[in-house]
Amino acid sequence: MLSDIDLNSVDVKKEFAEETAGWTGYVEWEKYPEKKALAKRILDTKKFTPIPEFQFVPLPDTNPVLIGHRWKEYHEVLGLKGIVDFSWETVQKEKPDMIHLLDFPYNGETRRDQLMEGKITSNKCHFIRNHGGVPDINEDVFEIEVGGLVKNPVKISFKDLKDPSKFPQETVTVTLQCSGTRRIEQIQQYPGDGDELINAPWGEGAMYVDLLVTASDISLLLTLNHIPTSGTAVYRGVALKKVLKIACGGILPECKHLEFIGADTYFKKNNVYNYAVSVPWRKVRHNEEVLLAWEMNGEPLPKIHGYPLRVVVTGYIGARSCKWVYRINALAEPSLGPVQSQEYLYYTPQIGKQNVKYSNGFSIQAMPVSSAIIFPLDKQVIVHDGKVTLKGWAYSGGGNWVQRVEVSNDGGSVWYAVPEENMTQKHYHAWRLWKIDLPTDAEGWLEFCVRTWDSSNNTEPTFVRSAWNWDLHVTSSCHRIKIYSVNRSRPDTAKRLKVLEEHGADVHNLTKPAEFELEDLNEFLEYRRKYPREPED
Amino acid sequence: MLSDIDLNSVDVKKEFAEETAGWTGYVEWEKYPEKKALAKRILDTKKFTPIPEFQFVPLPDTNPVLIGHRWKEYHEVLGLKGIVDFSWETVQKEKPDMIHLLDFPYNGETRRDQLMEGKITSNKCHFIRNHGGVPDINEDVFEIEVGGLVKNPVKISFKDLKDPSKFPQETVTVTLQCSGTRRIEQIQQYPGDGDELINAPWGEGAMYVDLLVTASDISLLLTLNHIPTSGTAVYRGVALKKVLKIACGGILPECKHLEFIGADTYFKKNNVYNYAVSVPWRKVRHNEEVLLAWEMNGEPLPKIHGYPLRVVVTGYIGARSCKWVYRINALAEPSLGPVQSQEYLYYTPQIGKQNVKYSNGFSIQAMPVSSAIIFPLDKQVIVHDGKVTLKGWAYSGGGNWVQRVEVSNDGGSVWYAVPEENMTQKHYHAWRLWKIDLPTDAEGWLEFCVRTWDSSNNTEPTFVRSAWNWDLHVTSSCHRIKIYSVNRSRPDTAKRLKVLEEHGADVHNLTKPAEFELEDLNEFLEYRRKYPREPED
Repeated sequence: MLSDIDLNSVDVKKEFAEETAGWTGYVEWEKYPEKKALAKRILDTKKFTPIPEFQFVPLPDTNPVLIGHRWKEYHEVLGLKGIVDFSWETVQKEKPDMIHLLDFPYNGETRRDQLMEGKITSNKCHFIRNHGGVPDINEDVFEIEVGGLVKNPVKISFKDLKDPSKFPQETVTVTLQCSGTRRIEQIQQYPGDGDELINAPWGEGAMYVDLLVTASDISLLLTLNHIPTSGTAVYRGVALKKVLKIACGGILPECKHLEFIGADTYFKKNNVYNYAVSVPWRKVRHNEEVLLAWEMNGEPLPKIHGYPLRVVVTGYIGARSCKWVYRINALAEPSLGPVQSQEYLYYTPQIGKQNVKYSNGFSIQAMPVSSAIIFPLDKQVIVHDGKVTLKGWAYSGGGNWVQRVEVSNDGGSVWYAVPEENMTQKHYHAWRLWKIDLPTDAEGWLEFCVRTWDSSNNTEPTFVRSAWNWDLHVTSSCHRIKIYSVNRSRPDTAKRLKVLEEHGADVHNLTKPAEFELEDLNEFLEYRRKYPREPED
Repeated sequence: MLSDIDLNSVDVKKEFAEETAGWTGYVEWEKYPEKKALAKRILDTKKFTPIPEFQFVPLPDTNPVLIGHRWKEYHEVLGLKGIVDFSWETVQKEKPDMIHLLDFPYNGETRRDQLMEGKITSNKCHFIRNHGGVPDINEDVFEIEVGGLVKNPVKISFKDLKDPSKFPQETVTVTLQCSGTRRIEQIQQYPGDGDELINAPWGEGAMYVDLLVTASDISLLLTLNHIPTSGTAVYRGVALKKVLKIACGGILPECKHLEFIGADTYFKKNNVYNYAVSVPWRKVRHNEEVLLAWEMNGEPLPKIHGYPLRVVVTGYIGARSCKWVYRINALAEPSLGPVQSQEYLYYTPQIGKQNVKYSNGFSIQAMPVSSAIIFPLDKQVIVHDGKVTLKGWAYSGGGNWVQRVEVSNDGGSVWYAVPEENMTQKHYHAWRLWKIDLPTDAEGWLEFCVRTWDSSNNTEPTFVRSAWNWDLHVTSSCHRIKIYSVNRSRPDTAKRLKVLEEHGADVHNLTKPAEFELEDLNEFLEYRRKYPREPED
């Protein structure tokens, strides 16, 4: 009996050993209910470091930004510290240059300048949102199992899967986007759920700016004013549809969903799982929309991206693109894995801590049209001659592509379309980068914002408020930044800029008081006498 | 020749000695241009600690919040360290319980709970916005000089001034308000001028909350979620009009403004001054509107409030109510003191660091209609049964009184008037405190706001944006807070609150993840089967 076991005497290394030789860091949970139960009992006896509060207080100005104490402890208690260590080593090797938003499970964000280098994000810079540690799997012994409601359950070796004479291959340019992209915009205004695996404060970054830097410190702004949990790569693999057809002889009529199981270990309320998510058969059926991929931008998948094999689900939230996938189950209903059934839910604003359930939010799958301004930075002081250059990305999931991008220099009253020649080419499943020289006459604080129209004429909600939700997912409202405009084409401004320069001062140091007189006394008196404050009678 | 002096050999204690026996901490500057010039030359040779950046970065979570290094150094260099020390001793004695926003020159803010104790703010809790150190003047030797464009320049001893057989006395209930009240609302959205004497981040306080506390920590919220630089007291004194008439035989026809000189020392761009401001004769002429006051709430003026004598200008910004006033000049034009001519200016939003002058803003005198919500606190989680109690203040300067207060639970679409019986009585020159049980059905994040209508039917601008200005003065837009509403009269919410309680959890810890299952699996599946995510066909 489980209850008779002296938990302190459990040899966790043995009980929770790796399943398969050559598959380091992979523990099988889903096949062994007793093992899961034992792990839960052990976890239940322990106290773990609480989730850090980062919504009502500012983010630390460190990199890594947040430390995943609790999740490290979960692994350690079960004898899986090796996974934690290997994961961080992998980060150092494969992602040394990221904003490490959470060190474990690793969540890393692309820096803005790297993001805008081109429509393809390099493997080194592509964002990472992991839900567990990184396994280290030898591709020579790797195989994938396909079972459930298929005609013939099979195991396919990695070698066979990659053999083009067995399965037709394809390459697709795909933008993957975490549904937490731009989450910080929601957090800044309306804090929400503090999930056990933290709802990472993926950037827009104004909070960061407030925290860390003066407006003049552009290099810091560049580093920390983070926005993206989106990235685009060219993936090579085989369509899951082909695998199901060729290897399994097709699915059974009851099959409506395909579940993906990953080799990483996931925790939820002291229950232990392998990572599991699902997508509808209807999505898989579209030829190229769900891939089993082993190549990213012409290279083998980096370990941290799912080596040797991952799923790539076009147009869906990143969470469905299961990494280290080793089992696929054809199901009649969506996966009951917590990531699918209890997380990534989209709630109406009346739902929150006081009434949230798993059934009163809907499962987020396809991503809506969305866009962001990557340059300039929020709170940046910009000296210009009547035009300010804006750059950013625009994306639509769910079967639509980006049709038009529009920006506003007045918070959303007047809109300017980005000329087609200033956008990267259209893709069915990838974003477009864009650039525009936005006419800007006014000075002082201006609100710039962007919206995108997709191929179904969808556009974005106006304000964060318009689509705020308890789990802080899918921040797809018009992205807004405040910039301080200094229009050098105005004579008074040009004159003052010269005076500042003569005094070794800089308008970019916006809040630094001037140490020289702003006006000659006689000039001042002349004006005051001409236009006295008080009426004469 | 001034230029021949070896500045290092100057005996500052002697050169900048106190002017008058019994007037400790008072140095006369305005009468001695050579002395001012010497002080400037000395200051010009020194380097001072830069003004702290507190607009682009969060406020420190200390009390005092900001440290006035630079202004202490100004005083020290001129041998006036005693003023700095005495000022802080006075704070300890007279204002031990304040939020010390800036330790020197002392800026102190009333705590919210103290503010709402009654319409009169106690002397111990009344806000302070000083521009220099606190002098220590013996009332037995104190006299005030009245000169300039008056028929007979005079000196009046304090004893004579207080003699009711010589001057008729009056008491007036007056709200004084710093034009920086609620400045933090502007700073949070749009940083502005970082004046040499810092534009103190007088609270609304959401920034504080973000900084320091989790939403559940109400005691800290109470302390730090600061709003007021307004306070109300009953002042006793004589009307300046009477003094001019009785003691001086009236003013000369050319007199249009009355200048007040205070015994504190003021600095601006290395120039040294006695504090000087002015108000129009037309304002003084109104019988009770400009007082020379020695009593505050039935007690002698506290030292930090101007003992022995101060000006109280009803309806005008606090800066005109000169403390430690010892000289009054009747002038043809407004004072050229920097506080009057170069500060407290109100700019249009196109004016900023790139073009600001002294003549392109207008001098702020009378204060507009304004109001604030003091309870609940910004970002507070509120459990209620369909009504939320709001409390606050409402004020109008400039000759108007508060007529009606209205609040909104939806950011400003639907407004509810505060019933007359829930407001303190009307005064010509003081605020009204108010309270309302605001019907609140919705849950989640709501935006509450308040606006006030005064006796000329003025009301407040809608958003901070509507009236933002470079010097961050007069934040009179509708005050807004975000609260998280939990409506216990809804059955699902009542049920969840019980579950939380059973688990020792608290809905006030909004972002803390629940450690129990939010929904029974069968219930979840039943719902999901009844309302499947994907269409059937």
